[in-house]
Amino acid sequence: MSELSRVTRYPERASEDRALLDELFDEVMVATVSSVIDGQPWSLPTFCARDGDRVLVHGSTGSGLMRHLATGASANLTIFSLDAVVVAESAFESSANYRSAVLRGTFARVADGERDHALRVLTDRLIPGRTAEVAANTSKEIAATAVLALPIEADNWIYKSSSGASGQPDPIVPDVWVGIVPMRLIAGDPVKDSWVADEIAVPPSVEALIRRHSCS
Amino acid sequence: MSELSRVTRYPERASEDRALLDELFDEVMVATVSSVIDGQPWSLPTFCARDGDRVLVHGSTGSGLMRHLATGASANLTIFSLDAVVVAESAFESSANYRSAVLRGTFARVADGERDHALRVLTDRLIPGRTAEVAANTSKEIAATAVLALPIEADNWIYKSSSGASGQPDPIVPDVWVGIVPMRLIAGDPVKDSWVADEIAVPPSVEALIRRHSCS
Repeated sequence: MSELSRVTRYPERASEDRALLDELFDEVMVATVSSVIDGQPWSLPTFCARDGDRVLVHGSTGSGLMRHLATGASANLTIFSLDAVVVAESAFESSANYRSAVLRGTFARVADGERDHALRVLTDRLIPGRTAEVAANTSKEIAATAVLALPIEADNWIYKSSSGASGQPDPIVPDVWVGIVPMRLIAGDPVKDSWVADEIAVPPSVEALIRRHSCS
Repeated sequence: MSELSRVTRYPERASEDRALLDELFDEVMVATVSSVIDGQPWSLPTFCARDGDRVLVHGSTGSGLMRHLATGASANLTIFSLDAVVVAESAFESSANYRSAVLRGTFARVADGERDHALRVLTDRLIPGRTAEVAANTSKEIAATAVLALPIEADNWIYKSSSGASGQPDPIVPDVWVGIVPMRLIAGDPVKDSWVADEIAVPPSVEALIRRHSCS
């Protein structure tokens, strides 16, 4: 295995802490899935959801990359959160606070009997509790969707993060502002479709989504 | 070339419009770079900046993936913006509005004489105008940083996006809220480091960063 499977740069940023990985998946909804096709790198940004010890992605049964991944091709899945811009006393020291994870492995197709469960997990990940507010998936809808799962194992992922301030330079550079600018994915006010009746209120699922992506 | 080099799914979401690609790079600061090492996919989330007809990334000269990319290995670079969660009348129809791009090609090392310019572009992309507020990069700093450039050509990228509402179902599902929840990466209030003198005000570069990531 290549040296790149270990965190060789900034080992202090690596963490074996599975709780941090789970927390990152609880916040970040979109991953980049990458694989190799005909020796070339292929990548696709895609919605994802952790379901216990696996990460689910879904797509049309006709998607080329989904079909490729379902053959058991080596793949990885990358997620990232930009948490702050670190404004240092020099350009060189300026950086970002972030959390990231790369999982490696092979995706397995979620079997027919499990796919309704997996689709519910995906929907409720995007809009918390939404499946309780709408009709169940039809068998036609379930059949039209490919769902793949990448296992989270003991040693198939790397978590890295950086946090805090840039650190006090020695000597201090006078007259230069130094600090951080927090960054966060925020939900704006919900916009109801024009044809929906006036008396239909924003449902708990949408309220929960907005709460999850609020400023505090 | 594989069929995956074309947008086979949802061709209406593809756009050849270079202006949209540039606009996406003007908003999204972090990309996932992927390549193939020993036949395996490798990915790394990394800060990026468009500089005319190329995209710059930088890292330590000791980074394994940076060294690999500098050999001219096939690579791609994926950027993504989640713009809204689309809450439809069914789980199946719920989705997201987004913009994404995947660029393919090979990175070239930015030559010694150009590297200071490239580093300034990277810094000002993160914190607009910051290089005018701090001392110039030292030759030691410039030597310690590898900068790679991926060209943007006529045909080495795919841009995809989805926008708008989910569309009115037929028949309408009564009592179900349908609409979108806008999402945006927002900058919070800047936090000055404790050792910085009280009279040092937030500089124009940080104000510009915050303005770029404000609610409006």
